[in-house]
Amino acid sequence: MSGAKLTYTQAGVDYSKIDPLKILAQQMARQTAPHAAAAGFPEVEASRGESAYVVDAGDFYLASITECLGTKALVADRVRALTGRTHYDSIAQDTLAMAINDLITVGARPVSVHAYWAVGGSDWFADDARMNDLAAGWKKTCDYAGVAWGGGETPSLSGVVAPDAIDLAASCVGVIRPKSRLCLGRRLAPGDAVVLLQSSGIHANGITLARKLADRLPEGYAARLPDGRAWGEALLDPTIIYSRVTETLFEEGLDLHYISNITGHGWRKIMRHPAELTYRITRLPPVPPVLRFMQERADLSLAEAYGSLNMGAGFALFLPEDQAGRAVAVARRHGIAACLAGRVETGPRRVLIEPLGVAYDAESLRLRG
Amino acid sequence: MSGAKLTYTQAGVDYSKIDPLKILAQQMARQTAPHAAAAGFPEVEASRGESAYVVDAGDFYLASITECLGTKALVADRVRALTGRTHYDSIAQDTLAMAINDLITVGARPVSVHAYWAVGGSDWFADDARMNDLAAGWKKTCDYAGVAWGGGETPSLSGVVAPDAIDLAASCVGVIRPKSRLCLGRRLAPGDAVVLLQSSGIHANGITLARKLADRLPEGYAARLPDGRAWGEALLDPTIIYSRVTETLFEEGLDLHYISNITGHGWRKIMRHPAELTYRITRLPPVPPVLRFMQERADLSLAEAYGSLNMGAGFALFLPEDQAGRAVAVARRHGIAACLAGRVETGPRRVLIEPLGVAYDAESLRLRG
Repeated sequence: MSGAKLTYTQAGVDYSKIDPLKILAQQMARQTAPHAAAAGFPEVEASRGESAYVVDAGDFYLASITECLGTKALVADRVRALTGRTHYDSIAQDTLAMAINDLITVGARPVSVHAYWAVGGSDWFADDARMNDLAAGWKKTCDYAGVAWGGGETPSLSGVVAPDAIDLAASCVGVIRPKSRLCLGRRLAPGDAVVLLQSSGIHANGITLARKLADRLPEGYAARLPDGRAWGEALLDPTIIYSRVTETLFEEGLDLHYISNITGHGWRKIMRHPAELTYRITRLPPVPPVLRFMQERADLSLAEAYGSLNMGAGFALFLPEDQAGRAVAVARRHGIAACLAGRVETGPRRVLIEPLGVAYDAESLRLRG
Repeated sequence: MSGAKLTYTQAGVDYSKIDPLKILAQQMARQTAPHAAAAGFPEVEASRGESAYVVDAGDFYLASITECLGTKALVADRVRALTGRTHYDSIAQDTLAMAINDLITVGARPVSVHAYWAVGGSDWFADDARMNDLAAGWKKTCDYAGVAWGGGETPSLSGVVAPDAIDLAASCVGVIRPKSRLCLGRRLAPGDAVVLLQSSGIHANGITLARKLADRLPEGYAARLPDGRAWGEALLDPTIIYSRVTETLFEEGLDLHYISNITGHGWRKIMRHPAELTYRITRLPPVPPVLRFMQERADLSLAEAYGSLNMGAGFALFLPEDQAGRAVAVARRHGIAACLAGRVETGPRRVLIEPLGVAYDAESLRLRG
């Protein structure tokens, strides 16, 4: 293994090319807002640019989203040869987590999901073990999150999806009721606590980097972590679903000011909200061995690692400081470790990770047009 | 050009492998129904297996769906070299049509859509003309259908999506209000008229067959149709969006008993509803030159052509016979030709196309588990 650094651009994800499209699409999308009102469901404009789209349904708000897994299934395909398991039950959970964990950030309870399973050829479905694991994992995750599996699409797309690959995505509809649950950051303010909920590992972001690293390591996915597990197997630990935590927080009346799902862009997502606020992080959650391994072997600086991977924090809650302890307790009750990691301050929009001497400024997270 | 036949299995779409998965997924999905009720939105069970999933929101029903384009964008990529146009404005319309034309079959008015544009590498978005046409076509189609573009996902998925390809899909949420608009075929009955609405061409089904045919033809997509147009260009005529027709039909109080979007499986979709009923077709709409050409050049029998392509009929309405004339008039008012093509009769579930001597029995359309 050479000590050469891996960057995201080398790994095939060039945000400078994707972000202009996102911004163009957002600007055009914004102009279509009157149609929702004409149909009797005026949009909540502040949801534009947030993780889910929200419209006003009268007695409640309705939230919707479509999210894709990314390339994590390619890791499962490779690691299967090591472990003898397809891992598609976990892959199903990852895919649903991408949609559900985003949907709940606006205060929604998930109601129904649609599956999008596009394959490169019909043969994908002839592998019974893989197909059954995918379906069973999808069902089990729906049961865990309390969401109805409403339907889906299973197209065979030769020439569009790579041979023997599967493009996995999920769309989700949710309800915000009572309407006071709506959580778009309007009340996010200096003095708020930042509570970070643990991740289980890499979740489903940073996978392209992991794949490139696997190609460079002499042992590939079979490389051992300090705890003895194969790195590839640890990569496949499924993403934590946080909907039970948010449901309990809302039911118990906690006053959530904002919620951010830590996905692409890593800890830069802590400043997801566009307000001019500084987020000072003073306490770090433990880093999962699978991510510490990647940071070291890909020779990532701390700023690169925390700016692209979740580094142990999968989900962020922003709420009044005197409620932080209750939020941590609710998460723990659902088996998810959490900590009061920092606070919101007046100042320019940026994230300061004090224990590491790392800072991200607003320009490093340009999500909105 | 050899006279050898092209079949769907040769063209890479083997329904015998896809359908068992669909059935497995449907069976598991069905078991998650109680979650929607627990969230306060009990599902309308009869919508399972229909084109959109419907839940009861109290004062209205809510419908949702996710649909993909298929492989039509690959045709646009090839034909661009002939015409000098990207055709992605049309491709955007095709993608949205797949979702909207399915959603409206249950009686829904579309409210919002999410875009799913997954590429094989960030470079896809560096082609400004293509990217701008896609975004502009998406916006224009949303305006035509009166639907708000709520957001979307634009992932770069190297290794999952083929290099320089794009996997396009759309998810859509709609409202059924008043609730009497709910259209799931409960009142479909012998004596009902079958009204067929014209297609603009191939729409977005049968594309894999078209691509295989293009590889076999000496001139490929540049082959000329009798009307002088290039076959490849005609393939890219965008799918008709039927939502304005259905909106007017419901507003004017027509009593729609069932609606079927004619997509994969061609005219077999006329017997989409599971009831034991016979559909006797006595009048045929004109066949678009682009489809007649394919039937002839791929040496498809009439049964194969009408069983896999739309052959001029993109959408089917089932309603009392004395309202058929009004339905035809409404479609024409929106610039869409239509005809009273046949009627529903007692008898085994099958489609009889009398003028062609073609029949499809129930076994040829197994969509439900």
